[in-house]
Parts: sequence; C-alpha cells; structure tokens
Amino acid sequence: MDTSFITALKKALEKRRAEYTEKLKKLIQVPTTFLNEQHGQRLIEKYISDIGLEVNSFIPNIKVLKKHPSYMSNRDTFENSPIIIGEWKGSGGGNSIILNSHIDVVPTGERNQWYDDPFSGVFQDGFIYGRGATDMKGGTISLLLALQLLSDIQVTLKGDVIFQSVVDEECGGAGTLATILEGYKADGVLIPEPTNQKIFPLQQGSIWFRLKLRGRSAHGGTRYEGVSAIEKAMQVIQQIRQIEMRRNQRINDPLYQNLPIPIPINVGKISGGDWPSSVPDYLEIEGRLGVSPEETIEEAKEEFSYLLSPALLQDPWFEQYPIDIEWFGASWLPGKIEQTHPFMKALVDSFESLYHKKPRIEASPWGTDAGLFSQVAHIPAIVMGPGITELAHFPNEKIKLENVFESAILYAIFLTNWCKLDSD
Amino acid sequence: MDTSFITALKKALEKRRAEYTEKLKKLIQVPTTFLNEQHGQRLIEKYISDIGLEVNSFIPNIKVLKKHPSYMSNRDTFENSPIIIGEWKGSGGGNSIILNSHIDVVPTGERNQWYDDPFSGVFQDGFIYGRGATDMKGGTISLLLALQLLSDIQVTLKGDVIFQSVVDEECGGAGTLATILEGYKADGVLIPEPTNQKIFPLQQGSIWFRLKLRGRSAHGGTRYEGVSAIEKAMQVIQQIRQIEMRRNQRINDPLYQNLPIPIPINVGKISGGDWPSSVPDYLEIEGRLGVSPEETIEEAKEEFSYLLSPALLQDPWFEQYPIDIEWFGASWLPGKIEQTHPFMKALVDSFESLYHKKPRIEASPWGTDAGLFSQVAHIPAIVMGPGITELAHFPNEKIKLENVFESAILYAIFLTNWCKLDSD
Repeated sequence: MDTSFITALKKALEKRRAEYTEKLKKLIQVPTTFLNEQHGQRLIEKYISDIGLEVNSFIPNIKVLKKHPSYMSNRDTFENSPIIIGEWKGSGGGNSIILNSHIDVVPTGERNQWYDDPFSGVFQDGFIYGRGATDMKGGTISLLLALQLLSDIQVTLKGDVIFQSVVDEECGGAGTLATILEGYKADGVLIPEPTNQKIFPLQQGSIWFRLKLRGRSAHGGTRYEGVSAIEKAMQVIQQIRQIEMRRNQRINDPLYQNLPIPIPINVGKISGGDWPSSVPDYLEIEGRLGVSPEETIEEAKEEFSYLLSPALLQDPWFEQYPIDIEWFGASWLPGKIEQTHPFMKALVDSFESLYHKKPRIEASPWGTDAGLFSQVAHIPAIVMGPGITELAHFPNEKIKLENVFESAILYAIFLTNWCKLDSD
Repeated sequence: MDTSFITALKKALEKRRAEYTEKLKKLIQVPTTFLNEQHGQRLIEKYISDIGLEVNSFIPNIKVLKKHPSYMSNRDTFENSPIIIGEWKGSGGGNSIILNSHIDVVPTGERNQWYDDPFSGVFQDGFIYGRGATDMKGGTISLLLALQLLSDIQVTLKGDVIFQSVVDEECGGAGTLATILEGYKADGVLIPEPTNQKIFPLQQGSIWFRLKLRGRSAHGGTRYEGVSAIEKAMQVIQQIRQIEMRRNQRINDPLYQNLPIPIPINVGKISGGDWPSSVPDYLEIEGRLGVSPEETIEEAKEEFSYLLSPALLQDPWFEQYPIDIEWFGASWLPGKIEQTHPFMKALVDSFESLYHKKPRIEASPWGTDAGLFSQVAHIPAIVMGPGITELAHFPNEKIKLENVFESAILYAIFLTNWCKLDSD
C-alpha cells in the first residue's frame, strides 16, 4: 500500500472528524435494545445514503426463520426491527465483502451503576460514553466512515461492498441469519466487534444449559435424614470443572495460547432450597458451555450430557434422580477461517502497512454472528474492531474516539486491498 | 403406682374416647396459622371449662415483649392472638407443673401435595389427618384428656396445674415468653411436642443465618477474568462442614449417641448470579445453626462468625470481601434438665409403671419453647408427646389416635406422681 494513499485517507478524515463524532453520539443516544431497533436503523439508513450508497431494507419473515435449525430468538415479529443494507457496487473483477454490524445493544442494567444517563453519548477525556458505544456502534461508525473516506478521495473498487446493519446479535443472531436466507453473500465477511484491533479468525461458539437437581427434604435439625440438593450441586460443579479441563486439554491451536481457558464452561446462576431450616430438595444451575471451532454445537452438547450422566458421576443418588439437562435461550455457532486464507492475509497486510508492526491474532473468547456466516453461509468471516471487549455489557461502557477513526483508516485500506482498486 | 389406679384411668378413658376424638378433629379443623390463632384459642377455652378448670386469657403486651432479648417475632400486635390459661389449684404441699402447648401450626405448603383438605381432620385407618395433628394438637388433647380423666375419677392433687395454650412457638416462642413475663411459674414444665413418647431432657437450640458473598463479574467466555461467587460459596460450604464437625466433636453427652450429628448446621437455601453467561458477582446462603444446651446462642454465633472470618478461610479474596453474616428470623434457646432431677425421675417412673419397660431418653434434634423455660424462667422443662417428629411440617400430617389416648393415661399418672395425690 503506497504511503500517499494512506496520507490521502488521513487528510480526508480531518474534514469528517466532527461530523462522524456527532453521528456516533446520535447513534448511541438511540436506545436500540431488543425490539426497539427501528429508530436506530432509520438513522443508519440516513447515514448510508449520506455517503451515497444504495439503501435497501427488509423485514425478516419470522415463519421462514423459525424453521431454520440455527434460529434462536424470543421475538414474535420483526415488524419494527428491519434489517438495513447499503450496497456499493464494484466495477467488476475484485473480491466482494460483507461488512456486518449489529444495531442491538444489551440492557443497561441498574441505572445507579452508571455515572451518567446510559444513553448520554457524552464525550469526555477522549471517550464517548453510553450503552453500545463499544459493542458495537463505534465499530459501525468506523465502517461507515471508511466508506465515506474512500468516496471522498474518489476511489473506485472492483469488488462489491455490502454493508449490513442487523438486529438480534445479542440474542443469537436471527438478524444475520435472515440476511443469509435473503440471499446476501460475498467472498468474505468483516464484523467490527470490539477486539481492540486484535484479529479474531477463530470464534468461540456457545450454548446455554440449565441443570435441574433433586434432593430429599428433611428438618434441618436432622439434616442427615435428607439429601441436600446443594451438596449434590457441589459435586456437579466439581464435575463441570473436570469436563472443562478435559475439553480444553484437546485445544492445541496456538491462537488459543493467550487464553487461560480457551473454551470455558461458566456456571452463571444457582438457585435452590426455600427454607433455612429445611434440607433443600431441589436446585437449578444455569450456565454457558463454550464451543470450539473444531466441533459442532451438537457434539459439544452430547459430550457435556454424557459426562454428567449418572454412570460418570459415580454416585448412586444420580442413578435414582438423574440430572435433568435443558438447553435454552441463546446459542452462537463457532467459526473459523484459516490463517493462510487470502482474506486473512489481506487484513494482516493492511494492518502492517498502516501500523508497521504485526497485528495480534487470537481466538475469540465469545461467539458472534461470524459463526453463522462460517457454518451456515460458508463464507469466511473475521472479527476485528475498535473498542475493548472488557467494556462491553458493563455499566459506563465507552469507546476511545481516536480508535474509531484509526479503525476507519484501517478498514479503508483493507477494502482497497481486498476488493481491489480500479485504477482506470 | 398401684394398678387399680391405672385401671380406673383406663375405664374413665372409655367413656371419653368419642368426645375427645371429636374435640381433636374440631381443633384440627380450625386453621390456626400465624396471626389466625383466635378461633382455635376460643375452642381451647371451651375445652378447659368443660373439664371444670378456671379459665384465664390475656393479650401479650408487644411493647414490653419487644424489649426482651429473647423476643423474636414478625408480628405487630397480639390483639387477635390471646394466650389461654387453665388453672387447677392443688390442695397444697405438692409440686406445681406447667403444661405448655402451642396452638399455632406451620403453613400447609402446596395444596396439591395433600391427598385431602389440609384441615380436614379426617379419621382413616387409625389416624387423624391435618396440619397440626401431630404438631401439636394431638399432644394438646392428650394433656386436656389427662386432666379430664383425673377429674372423672375424682382425684385431688396437692400441687397446682397450670395449662397454657400459647401462640408463636413455630416462629420463636413469643407466646411462651409472654407467659413467663406475665409471671407464670411452676416447679417443672411438660411440653407435649411430638417425640413418639421418647423423653427429651435436652433441647437443641437454633438460630438462622444469612451469608452474603461477593464475586467479581466477567463475561462467561473469559470467566477466568472474574471471580465466581458460586465457587466462593463452595469453599464456604466446605468450611461450614468443618465448623459442624468441630462443634459436634465436643458433644459427649450419651443422650446424643443415637444422633449422627447432634447439632447440625443446615445449609437450606442458596441463590446467586443472574445470567448464564456472566460470572456471578453475588450470592446468598441461608441456613440454620444448631445450638447445644452446653452453650449460649451468643457463644454459638461468635464461634460460627469467627470460623468464617477472613483469616480462617485462608483465601485472600475474603480479606478484601469478608462474608457478611446476618442473624435473622427465628431462634430457639437450647435447654437442659439433668437426668437425676426429681422431675425427670417422676416422668421416667410413670412411664415404667404404665409400660413396664424403660422409656427412650434422647436429646431433641430441634428447638422448642422448653429452651425459654430453661434459660429465661429457670424452670426445668421436659419435652415428650404423642405424634412423630418426622410427620411434623410435612404434607398429610397425621397422628395415631391410640397414641393420643395412651399419652393421656401416661400424663395422668405423671401428674399424680409429681403433684402428689391428696388422699384425704
């Protein structure tokens, strides 16, 4: 990549800085929580058309979606949750790309945990604050700004660029699944989830489980006459740690070397018993099973269930009262693109030409819509964006504004590398 | 005890069988749950006056009670919860006795767990069914019937008999405390809680605790970045098992030899975390700490708190976030009467003269109002009654009718032994 091109992008950025700062603030100020995505999507439509792209939108057909094995959502309709598409047709002969961004944000949680209104979009000490700032409205603005800058310096790309603003990423990916079923495809997908500009070619999948355990009640003063569901739960949690260890010992991809536990099993919730002086006779555990890109969700479920079966728990109690295992709520497919794939190489090269150093390449510790692209649409997908994972889903979520701008430059270079510049 | 006296009692019983069966049924049919004791108490008043005893009743002064260190109740008033007293003055020169019975019953729980209406009072296959049948309306009727039989065979006792029908036993003993503060006293107390006619000279005390534990939240996919309150709870529960072992190793009274764990610590309830794929940052445990008659409630609390202090848990996490320990809800004082005490000997002798075998003497695995008599009023108290502990507080509670009658005979003999027959 020649230096004068990068210089031109940076120069163009200076003129767009104030406008796109404002656009990010406004986008954060729209509370695009589950089922409330419409106003945010309308704003995205306007932003796309400001750049000069062709705008499309569609309402997913929930009846069709519900029949798909990877569909996972609690909604009854998409009526107020459109998908927005911005298309920039290439001149032909280059690689096409999907830029996939989600508009939905997770709930704000307790208001008193926030210093300011959770949807303030306030700018302070270099950061813009608000739910969704880092996950992932910052990344969305970076993508749009990249397209804006390419347009500003009058670049023509050979390959098609399809920008997608989807819903439901936070609850299992129904929006992205809808774009796939609608027929959108390309030679590669970039998703600007907050990775602090690390490149994630491997996506951890996940699925939620609920375990129901039985005990036998008795008065607390004669607790030895009962069987405590809490003590049984302690055995089960020990076994879950064993299962986690066993599953992770198999992981040998060097991209996982910085993750202490590549595919963790999280025990997130426990609830059992109803009286201090009774032996608890019932208990529920809820958690998240991490799924590796080397296995399917079904394989992971089967292994987990097998290792929690009565025979493996070595306690006659479970022969009599086996653990009832439910799979519920959200799931995310795992995903993988080989590091030797040209799509990966194009992104790594772009990073090196901008920063003059090697990017950090890691496996993601969570699931994204990249799994759907990878496993359902069979399109290689990479996750990389501004924003920091650790700030996502937490109170006082924020993003460093300069990172949004830097990522825009990086994306613009990457698009040029991948879709190819038409120099005619 | 001469045989002709016992024969006379048994003969008198035959004439009262139908009447007292009906009286027990009716008493069970009144749902005397917390705050709803009034109608049951009015029935007791009638039963007492049927026997010919002097009836008194009083409304405890809640302001005075609340100032007492052993007061424990959630109520705001006793207005509809009178205490009923039946007095049978002796001719003088004998030992006096308090016969203490509680009218309150625990909630019925889920209706569908009962084969019949929980307050049916139905008689079937030798048992009378209903909430309170065994705990302890059966025992109450045994006591009243004993007095009736003594009256029927025209016995005069030397010592005073004070029958008390109290409230709030099931939630910490405020009713009995009120009788003590009202000035009622005697040389011994008998409480007909369901022991299946075993004699309990030792009463286990108890107190409820609530432990609040902190964790540090993180995304489940990077669970190693958080600190799980559930894993901390597992450490704490292990420690509670150690504390229980340590406390029970000290117990060497042979009366405890049939109890696998003389003073258990029951972990009755656990609740933590709120999202399957987040590391739980908060958890609560509720339970019951058994208290031995050899210690005070305060001593037991102190030891428990000390053994859960950060230094003893050997985990720096607890230095930073110590366990918050609350003592809440009900508590029962422990109690003890020496086996050599004449009051004990009188009961044992009575048992032997009726059954021609030794009674089973054990330590109680739960608390009763006997602790209040023992520790606050300093009156020796014994617990013994018909009905079976294991049926108390459970659905389909029942009592064997013959046991109610047998106990009435036993109580009548005991009253004669203790209060002394006036043969003039």
